[in-house]
Amino acid sequence: MENRTYTADAEPGERVTVAGWVHELRDLGGIAFLILRDKTGKIQVKFAKDEMDDDLVEAGTSVSRESVVTVVGTVEEEPRAPTGVEVVPESVEVVAPADPELPLDPSGKVDAELPTRLDNRTLDLRRDEAKAIFEIRAEILRAVREYFREVGATEINTPKIVATGTEGGTELFPITYFGEEAFMNQSPQLFKQLMVGSGLERVFEIGPIFRAEEHNTPRHLNEATSIDFESAFIDHREAMDVCEGAVRAAYEAVDENCREQLELLGLADEFEAPEGAFPRLSYGEAIERVNATGELDEQLVWGDDLSTEAEKALGRDVGGHYFVTDWPSEIKPFYIKDHDDDEALSTGFDLMHPRMELVSGGQREHRYDELVAGFEQQGLDPDAFEYYTKMFRYGMPPHAGFGLGAERLLMTVLGLENIREAVLFPRDRQRLSP
Amino acid sequence: MENRTYTADAEPGERVTVAGWVHELRDLGGIAFLILRDKTGKIQVKFAKDEMDDDLVEAGTSVSRESVVTVVGTVEEEPRAPTGVEVVPESVEVVAPADPELPLDPSGKVDAELPTRLDNRTLDLRRDEAKAIFEIRAEILRAVREYFREVGATEINTPKIVATGTEGGTELFPITYFGEEAFMNQSPQLFKQLMVGSGLERVFEIGPIFRAEEHNTPRHLNEATSIDFESAFIDHREAMDVCEGAVRAAYEAVDENCREQLELLGLADEFEAPEGAFPRLSYGEAIERVNATGELDEQLVWGDDLSTEAEKALGRDVGGHYFVTDWPSEIKPFYIKDHDDDEALSTGFDLMHPRMELVSGGQREHRYDELVAGFEQQGLDPDAFEYYTKMFRYGMPPHAGFGLGAERLLMTVLGLENIREAVLFPRDRQRLSP
Repeated sequence: MENRTYTADAEPGERVTVAGWVHELRDLGGIAFLILRDKTGKIQVKFAKDEMDDDLVEAGTSVSRESVVTVVGTVEEEPRAPTGVEVVPESVEVVAPADPELPLDPSGKVDAELPTRLDNRTLDLRRDEAKAIFEIRAEILRAVREYFREVGATEINTPKIVATGTEGGTELFPITYFGEEAFMNQSPQLFKQLMVGSGLERVFEIGPIFRAEEHNTPRHLNEATSIDFESAFIDHREAMDVCEGAVRAAYEAVDENCREQLELLGLADEFEAPEGAFPRLSYGEAIERVNATGELDEQLVWGDDLSTEAEKALGRDVGGHYFVTDWPSEIKPFYIKDHDDDEALSTGFDLMHPRMELVSGGQREHRYDELVAGFEQQGLDPDAFEYYTKMFRYGMPPHAGFGLGAERLLMTVLGLENIREAVLFPRDRQRLSP
Repeated sequence: MENRTYTADAEPGERVTVAGWVHELRDLGGIAFLILRDKTGKIQVKFAKDEMDDDLVEAGTSVSRESVVTVVGTVEEEPRAPTGVEVVPESVEVVAPADPELPLDPSGKVDAELPTRLDNRTLDLRRDEAKAIFEIRAEILRAVREYFREVGATEINTPKIVATGTEGGTELFPITYFGEEAFMNQSPQLFKQLMVGSGLERVFEIGPIFRAEEHNTPRHLNEATSIDFESAFIDHREAMDVCEGAVRAAYEAVDENCREQLELLGLADEFEAPEGAFPRLSYGEAIERVNATGELDEQLVWGDDLSTEAEKALGRDVGGHYFVTDWPSEIKPFYIKDHDDDEALSTGFDLMHPRMELVSGGQREHRYDELVAGFEQQGLDPDAFEYYTKMFRYGMPPHAGFGLGAERLLMTVLGLENIREAVLFPRDRQRLSP
C-alpha cells in the first residue's frame, strides 16, 4: 500500500490511509471508538453517530475485533485520545474479517497459557510483549554478526544434512537421503573446524541445529539456533575473549536500540548490560565454591559434572556471568584439546549465566594422530569421519571456538521463564506443529 | 596468538611473529625463500644459508608445503620480494606438518576438477579464488540483511523440521521425529506468511531449505540457502520493488566492498552493478518476445511454462535482469493470489537473470475460503495444514513476498559455472559428504 501511513506517523491535519487490526471497540452511545493497531502502534478512530453517515458508522462499529481494516480519514488533535490524536473517518473498509471467537486475546487482557500461545503464534505476536521479544531477538542476531565481523570472522553456512553426527549416532534425527542413511546435523562443529584450516582462518555461523534429546524441560529444544565461532591461531583463552565480547555486544545492542521493547516487557528500569570482565573460575575453584555454599546435599568431588543444582548454587554465589575452565579431560568431548602440560585437564570452557549454561567451547585437538586416537577411544569409527580427519594431515593450525545457544542467550537477556518463548515455532517431543 | 602480526601488516623495521601456511619454497643455492601465506596475504621469509644457523636454515627449508609454521623475525625492505618486504628469521617452528602428497594444490598451479575441490574444501579455500567467492558470499548476505532492515523487516527463524511441506509431500526429505513422520522444510513460505499476520507485519529469513528433487544439474542443490521476504499490506508490485532492491544491494555491496576479491577472480574490470530498473514483462509479452527471437524449434503458446531454452533466448534478448509477471494462474502455486479482475491471471512473478531464474514471488491468497479451496483443488488435505489455514480466520492482511536463492544469486553475480562453487559443502544426489 503505497499511500499507507503508519499510525505512529499520523500528524494532525493530515488526510491519511491507515491500515491494521481492530484492537478494541468502545461504544459510548452517541460516540464510538475503534482502536486500530499496526506494527508501529495504535490510533483511535472516532465515530460520531449523529454527524456521520449511517453506513460508515455501521461499518466501523459492527466489525469484529482483530479484523483487518483500512480507514481513510483526517487526523485531528484530541487530548483525551491515548496518543493525543484521532482519525475522523471518511471510509472504513473491512479487508479481512476475523471470526468473533478468538483462540487467544491479542489485547492481552485475558491471559493465555503458553501452549495456546504457541498454537496461535500469529495472534500471540499481535501482543506487544511477544512481538517485543522477537524484535529483540532480531537485534541480538544483528549485533552478534556485526561483532564477529569486527573481529575479522567470515560468515559461513555449513550443511544441515550430514553423513555422520559430531559426536556419533546418538541424539541424531535420522533422515532418508536418496536411499542412504543421513542425519540432521547436531552442530556445525566439524565443518567450522574444516574452515579454520582454509584461507578464511576465522569463521562464524548462525543457523539451526537439531538434537534428538529426550529432555523436555523449560531450557531444552529439539531444534535450536546456534551461534558458532571458530578461529585458527587462537587458544581457549582468546576464544573466551571473543565469546565474552559477543555476549556483551548482544546486551549493549539491546540496551541501546531496544528501549521501547524493554519498556513493553516491563524491563526498562532493571535492564543493564553486564559490567566488568566475566570471572574465569577453574573447575577446581568452581567445585570448591559450590561446596562452600553448603546448598548441596552431597559435596562435589573431583570428576563430578556440575549438576543443575550445583550450577544454580554457583550462579547465586557469583551473581553474574562466569566461565568455568580447566575441566577434567574425561568430562569434555574428545575433539577438545587437553592442556599441553597436564593431559588430565581439558582446555574446554563453559560460559554460565546464573540461570543456565550458555556456551560450550575450547581449544580443539589439531594433531592428526591424537584426533584419530580420540575417535577410537570414544568408540567411534575414524573411517566414518575421514572427510574430516583427512584435512588434519595437510596443515591444520591450532584453533579454538565455541557454540552459543541463541535461544538461551535471549532467554537470559530478558529473563524469560521458558525457552519456548524465545523461538517462534518451538520443536519439542510433543510439538511438531505449527 | 596475541602477538601475531598478519602478513599484510608487517612493516619494515618491526620484529614480528607471523603464522600461516608454507605456500612455496624456493632454493636458489646460497639463499632460499619460504613464502608464508595467511588470511591477509603472503610474505617472503629469507634464509641466507652462510649467514644463518644451520638448524634454522634446515627448519625453514625442509618443511613440506602447506605445513603450518610460525616465524619470528625482523621485517626488512626488499624491492625484489613480491610484497616489497621480507622477514629475516630468528626462529621457525613447524606447528602442524603437512603430508608431502597433497590431494590438491592450493597454490593453484595445478588445476583441480570440481569434485576434487569439493572433497578437499579446506585445501580448496586456501586458493585465493575460492576464498574470494566465500568472502563475497558473506558480504552479499550482510548487505541483503541490512537492506531488509532498512525497509522495516524483522529477521525471523522458522522451523526446519515440519509436519507438512509447503506444497505437499513430493520432493520432501522424510525424517523420523520421535516416532512420528516429519519432513525437512522445503521453504519457509507458510511460516513467514503466519508472521505477516502477526504484529511484525514484515519479515525476512535467510536459512537452509531442503528439496528432494532428482535434478542433478549445474544449478540445482538438494540443500540450499533461501533469502525470504514477506510483508503485510503490500501487493506483488511492491514485493517486486523490494526484490529488486535486495538484488541491487547485493551487487552494490560487492562493487563497493569486495574490489580485492573481484581482482583475484579476474572480474575487477567487467564487474558492474545493474543499472536502471529491471524491466517487467508480462507472461504474454515474454512468450511473444521468445517467439520473435526465432531461436526455439517450436513456438510457445499461452499456457506453456518457459523452458530453460526459452529462458535463455529471452535472457539474451533482454540482456539483463527482468521480471516475468501475470502468469497463467494454472502454472503458479495455489497460495499465490489471482488478479481480482481476471482469475485466469496470477499475481505471481519470477525474477530472471539472463542465465537462470533467481526469484519466485507474488501476492498471496489471504482469504480463508479461497485458500482452503486451493488446497482441495491441489489434492491436498486442508486439515493437514490447519495450523496454517486457521490463522487466516483471524484477520490475515493482504500480503506479498518472495524467495531468492542465495547460491543462484552468488552464481550470477560472479558468473560461476556450477552452483556447487557457491556453497561450501554442497548436497546433491551423489554428495552427502564432506
